[in-house]
Amino acid sequence: MRRDNGRIQKPAVFAIVLTLLAGAAAEGGIQRGAGVEEVRSYRAAHERAIIGEYLEMLSLPNGTADGPDIRRNAEFIAAMFRRRGLTVRLIEAEGSPPAVLAEQSVPGAKTTIALYAHYDGQPVNRENWTHDPWQPILLNASMDNRGQPVPLEALPGAGDGEWRIYARSASDDKAPIMAMAAALDALRSAGIPAAANLKLFFEGEEEAGSPHLGRILAAEPGLLRADLWLLCDGPVHSTRRPQVFFGARGVTGLELTVYGPLRPLHSGHYGNWAPNPALILAQLLAGMRDLEGAITIEGYGAKVRDLTVEERRALDALPQADEALRRELGLGRTEGGGKSLAELIMRPSLNIRGIRSGEVEDKAQNAIPTEARASIDFRLVPDQCPAEVQALVEAHLRSRGFRIVRETPDLETRLASPFVAKVRWEEGYPAARTDMSLPLCRDLVRVLDEALEAPVIRIPLSGGSVPMYLFQTTPGRPVVLFPIANHDNNQHGADENLRLQNLWDGIEMFAALFSRLGAVRR
Amino acid sequence: MRRDNGRIQKPAVFAIVLTLLAGAAAEGGIQRGAGVEEVRSYRAAHERAIIGEYLEMLSLPNGTADGPDIRRNAEFIAAMFRRRGLTVRLIEAEGSPPAVLAEQSVPGAKTTIALYAHYDGQPVNRENWTHDPWQPILLNASMDNRGQPVPLEALPGAGDGEWRIYARSASDDKAPIMAMAAALDALRSAGIPAAANLKLFFEGEEEAGSPHLGRILAAEPGLLRADLWLLCDGPVHSTRRPQVFFGARGVTGLELTVYGPLRPLHSGHYGNWAPNPALILAQLLAGMRDLEGAITIEGYGAKVRDLTVEERRALDALPQADEALRRELGLGRTEGGGKSLAELIMRPSLNIRGIRSGEVEDKAQNAIPTEARASIDFRLVPDQCPAEVQALVEAHLRSRGFRIVRETPDLETRLASPFVAKVRWEEGYPAARTDMSLPLCRDLVRVLDEALEAPVIRIPLSGGSVPMYLFQTTPGRPVVLFPIANHDNNQHGADENLRLQNLWDGIEMFAALFSRLGAVRR
Repeated sequence: MRRDNGRIQKPAVFAIVLTLLAGAAAEGGIQRGAGVEEVRSYRAAHERAIIGEYLEMLSLPNGTADGPDIRRNAEFIAAMFRRRGLTVRLIEAEGSPPAVLAEQSVPGAKTTIALYAHYDGQPVNRENWTHDPWQPILLNASMDNRGQPVPLEALPGAGDGEWRIYARSASDDKAPIMAMAAALDALRSAGIPAAANLKLFFEGEEEAGSPHLGRILAAEPGLLRADLWLLCDGPVHSTRRPQVFFGARGVTGLELTVYGPLRPLHSGHYGNWAPNPALILAQLLAGMRDLEGAITIEGYGAKVRDLTVEERRALDALPQADEALRRELGLGRTEGGGKSLAELIMRPSLNIRGIRSGEVEDKAQNAIPTEARASIDFRLVPDQCPAEVQALVEAHLRSRGFRIVRETPDLETRLASPFVAKVRWEEGYPAARTDMSLPLCRDLVRVLDEALEAPVIRIPLSGGSVPMYLFQTTPGRPVVLFPIANHDNNQHGADENLRLQNLWDGIEMFAALFSRLGAVRR
Repeated sequence: MRRDNGRIQKPAVFAIVLTLLAGAAAEGGIQRGAGVEEVRSYRAAHERAIIGEYLEMLSLPNGTADGPDIRRNAEFIAAMFRRRGLTVRLIEAEGSPPAVLAEQSVPGAKTTIALYAHYDGQPVNRENWTHDPWQPILLNASMDNRGQPVPLEALPGAGDGEWRIYARSASDDKAPIMAMAAALDALRSAGIPAAANLKLFFEGEEEAGSPHLGRILAAEPGLLRADLWLLCDGPVHSTRRPQVFFGARGVTGLELTVYGPLRPLHSGHYGNWAPNPALILAQLLAGMRDLEGAITIEGYGAKVRDLTVEERRALDALPQADEALRRELGLGRTEGGGKSLAELIMRPSLNIRGIRSGEVEDKAQNAIPTEARASIDFRLVPDQCPAEVQALVEAHLRSRGFRIVRETPDLETRLASPFVAKVRWEEGYPAARTDMSLPLCRDLVRVLDEALEAPVIRIPLSGGSVPMYLFQTTPGRPVVLFPIANHDNNQHGADENLRLQNLWDGIEMFAALFSRLGAVRR
């Protein structure tokens, strides 16, 4: 990890008090965890072998829809962990690619930690890649910094933390799989035992929306009974500091269509009489959300769970980058009445993804359009769920005089109601949030703080949606999002890459978690 | 004209009183005008010659942008009227196609009537035409009614009123030119003298937006000093009854863009903080016009001239087709609180031609779009003018906190204001309306009523926009829109056509106007 992190900003007084109450390490009081040096030495001595194995994994094409390719990846990963002495099974639901489950039991251990990553990748558009996405290449810096190819044999190399591997899934999401395997090697080499039972679970269809994940988990009750789930996906904070998310927003999506005349009408001859669907849509959207982001649909906030004092404290401690970001994005104002981005993301959101009606600019005609469409995503926070949000939105539409239909309305349906709205929902899923004050959450933070020699960034809820709810079936068993990839990894796009320091840091953090979580003194 | 017109609906009592006060012919009291029978007999005996000459005119390609073709049309029309003894000139402004001016003076006449038509046509998309658009074809019914080709020699034919000529500009707008020429022939043949001086003015670039019309008219002060302008363009009423419009709405157009972040942002990570431009646009549009069509921009209605009692009476007398139209168009409601289409068209209107932001349906992504665009047309009524409307809209934007820019804003401009709107106006033109109670207007209506043996439909203002204001330079000199083509003529589209009865009716109406207007007893 970067050693040049600035100190976090001073927490407010009440937050310091809470920090002490919570027993978490305060600024400057973090002790180096045992074993960190041994793991680092192991890694430094074995960089070429680690990266060599990783390049082999990355050379397996893994487009999420390519069944035979995906299976080859699963078998490769299964072999990786069998070599390391773990018990490995491939788990399949009907029609699903195999998930890989690698297990290691520790005699007498009372804690079971489960870790998730996925080995499938986004489809690639080869034209946009500088190199073949499945012929991984090692550069001595990022492409943006004019990195040049270096052979594997150049490792270990001076300053290699900034070297990068370019390949599909180099960061998203094979990196945690490699880091976990190397962490196990390092601990074994140093003779450091694991403290908890381990269940490493690797999915093969995350980029396809995880259609079978719920069924696979339900069929493996032992997995869901783990004391802690670490979901390892996504990037670290843009300051390059590691972060953990104790929850994630849920999501649902709406395609909404409202109607004007059956055919486009001359605006001069029919305007003011034939309803304009773009105006109907504008009025409708304007009534659902205000300019500060507040959702004005009746009853919408009822199920929103308040943040705890500890969660608020964590928000206050976050690195502040809002002003720089605002300038970078060319924003003359931000929503939310001046509140921080981090705090605003804790709220439910309604985002208009797109609107369409008639034509604009050169194609515009003096006509009343026949329909207007909006595409909306709703981000849900605990304890909202899609069915309830959908019901509230539909009640709002009805209260505005709309008849709701699921298919394009026929003539009689149009004539029967003053306003007709076609409503199509994307199913979506609910939000999930783990109480940060649970003992295992505190242990997790302490182990990471000690491994990092700096406080890990703690975020109550990821703004982006992750189906954490699938893992969170038992209250009191934490489910946490713990990413290791660099933030500038071109995830999902061309020239996806992994910064080596992020892999090195991942190895150290996983080794610390494997060796100390479950054994840590409370 | 159709002889099967039903009686117009009974006017309200106050309207009858006004009718009598105005001296206009009341229901059932219309007398046949002198000369109508002679003109009809002439036409019946000369149908083949009239249509023969017309087919020749229609066989000249006249796409509005095709300079040499356009000039051939001008020369053909000039020759037509020279043969008929009129004084003809081609008038050109720099860079314009020639306008044709054919004049006939009557010794002792105190009134000068000017008539306008245009001889250029909309560009054609030949693929969509059943026949070559410039090889006119005569069918014994409309294509919709399975009309079959008939030779010119079949004329005069029984029931030929429903025969049709298919060709570009058959109705828009060469039909009035042919009808005027045949009317002059019929009057000469019957020995009926013209009552007024005539100025027949034919433009060659109407379909290109008349870019030189103002300059040409300004350079011919004699034209603008005519006592009455009849602008002959467009279709008759959908009931097939002839109509006159005493004005037309003006128009201006707006392309409006509002801004979000410089690049699309993940809605989960930035939603509720980075402003959503589609929502900004929806709020803005919703604040400019309500669901009943009323424009809610401050001060917008200040320059709207009230309708006169006579104008209201004319509206009340219009054929009512709203309910059938509403059903045909699939409208569950109409705007304007139940007021009639005819009455609503007398008001200013704001029509959203289109809106665009982000993507919808399959292309939608969970992202905050970078901008949102709306295209709007404003229809103006007397005494609104574009500059004033534009100023009101911009004042409205400013009152909502928007900085107005004319080009896509740079980073500093975006950062300097909470809201930025790029505003681009289409110049447009003002509305025009002639007082229906002017003596020449009353004469016009009386002559047409007598020629038709039924009241002509009188409409104070055309909902569609026509640059009548260019002709209306002197208060008290009426400018009236007087169309003759069938309403189902496929104007501007493929398979444009003219119903022969509309040509026959046009000949009779022009003959009546030429022979009686200016001589009619007041």
